[in-house]
Amino acid sequence: MKLVTFTYRGAQTIGLVAGDRVVDLAAADPSLPTDMIALIRAGTQALDRIRAIDTATAPAYALADVHLDAPVLTPSKYLAIGMNYRAHVKEALSKGVQVPDTQVWFNKQVSCINGPFDDVHKPRASDHLDYEAELAVVIGRRCRHVPVEHAKDVVFGYTIANDVSVRDWQLRSSTFTLGKSWDTHGPIGPWIVTADELPDPHGLRLRMVVNGEVRQDITTDQMLANVWQQIAHLSTVMTLEPGDIIATGTPSGVGLAMQPPSWLKVGDVMRVELEGIGHIENRVVAEPESTVMR
Amino acid sequence: MKLVTFTYRGAQTIGLVAGDRVVDLAAADPSLPTDMIALIRAGTQALDRIRAIDTATAPAYALADVHLDAPVLTPSKYLAIGMNYRAHVKEALSKGVQVPDTQVWFNKQVSCINGPFDDVHKPRASDHLDYEAELAVVIGRRCRHVPVEHAKDVVFGYTIANDVSVRDWQLRSSTFTLGKSWDTHGPIGPWIVTADELPDPHGLRLRMVVNGEVRQDITTDQMLANVWQQIAHLSTVMTLEPGDIIATGTPSGVGLAMQPPSWLKVGDVMRVELEGIGHIENRVVAEPESTVMR
Repeated sequence: MKLVTFTYRGAQTIGLVAGDRVVDLAAADPSLPTDMIALIRAGTQALDRIRAIDTATAPAYALADVHLDAPVLTPSKYLAIGMNYRAHVKEALSKGVQVPDTQVWFNKQVSCINGPFDDVHKPRASDHLDYEAELAVVIGRRCRHVPVEHAKDVVFGYTIANDVSVRDWQLRSSTFTLGKSWDTHGPIGPWIVTADELPDPHGLRLRMVVNGEVRQDITTDQMLANVWQQIAHLSTVMTLEPGDIIATGTPSGVGLAMQPPSWLKVGDVMRVELEGIGHIENRVVAEPESTVMR
Repeated sequence: MKLVTFTYRGAQTIGLVAGDRVVDLAAADPSLPTDMIALIRAGTQALDRIRAIDTATAPAYALADVHLDAPVLTPSKYLAIGMNYRAHVKEALSKGVQVPDTQVWFNKQVSCINGPFDDVHKPRASDHLDYEAELAVVIGRRCRHVPVEHAKDVVFGYTIANDVSVRDWQLRSSTFTLGKSWDTHGPIGPWIVTADELPDPHGLRLRMVVNGEVRQDITTDQMLANVWQQIAHLSTVMTLEPGDIIATGTPSGVGLAMQPPSWLKVGDVMRVELEGIGHIENRVVAEPESTVMR
């Protein structure tokens, strides 16, 4: 199933994509919630109720008439792994990034989460704006100490992420934190494909296309730590919660590594395509002046 | 005012500390919420309603009879600055941590937040458990691009944090992420002292006492980047939200820097004392075996 968070005439709710229409889940079955994290928490029973909906007769809108929002709006965590494709490790090393012999995790602040087709800000304080195409995992249940062989059981589904990065702010500190979390720099979507439809998230073709030019192109089986190893490693440390987002790493081809580096400019369009899911597409706009002290 | 989140007979709500009693805010005034972030969002009007409560006659419990929880349970962000006291920078440098000429920010995952007097886990996967005493800021309003001179206006109040750290996991990757976020490793509290009672959070004595031995002892005016500069810098990048937690750095004296390093063991008691607020105290216990796949 393709599950979306969407807004229609000012009201935000969740839906099921059926062809070129979006079924309004809570309108079709009032026992279903209007929020994706609540749906994930509701577990398999809620998914079974969705499967029982007759999409031909259920209340629905044309996909073209709704605004697709980030499928998960406020996860408790948005974690991302760095240096997880071999050729990207090489290009990062050449730019002075230290690459240890372990999984390298950093955070995107949840306040940077953005819709799959919404604008991304070119910061006023930096010209070094860059992209990173990634497969993202959506966690399905509260879990800790998940063995690799059971990691699949805690996944709700998969979506697409663009880990938009501000390279000068990222590399000023080894922790990356401030370069990864500018407002609007976390586009995800366009929907969550539930795990039953993607039993193996490895081997999917992943591409970043900027203004029509292919910049990144890989299959996800080239990850150094695969999805199951990532979940096992993270959950050694911390409890993962329903709705938590895990971005699984970007391949080579980022603007930072081009000769000379190629930074995104206002008007550029980033499109991330991921086999089995679809695409997200975000235009770069100037950071608005009107964001002080809201 | 000292504001707490507490549990009494299985019910969790928020309260006002008045001497050795805790006023149940929603019981005293049903227009008040039962959750701290909702209270912060409600703004000055809600605080005025709290000030209007007659604490002598309002519904209240003995402080000794309630369980104090983390004052903010699920902030959207828990950010922490590293290397923000000169002597701690020196001890970190000596241990191979890179110290750039900028504010170094990292995350604690919100899933690690813990009560002010609750147990802290000694991980099964590490023996390098350490402490960090810190002053923490609680953000009071949604804000972005806050100038240094207005930073005070976005602070709701202050609390105490122990940035419990797993040093081998922290230093294995330059991003620190996995060493800073083990479940239970984010004790905060015991309450939020509202900003009106602490107009200047600098110049407060901050101490870490482990098993009765003073390990860290500083005044907060020794910070390299002060609280206002931290808020201005962070909000250049991202929107801060009501309830967000900012840990403002730890002074020298961590176990990592002792000769030889001194790691926390099961049974050790960490006590953080902060002038103008109070103290938190957490005992180290073995990480339970029963945390798999909840």
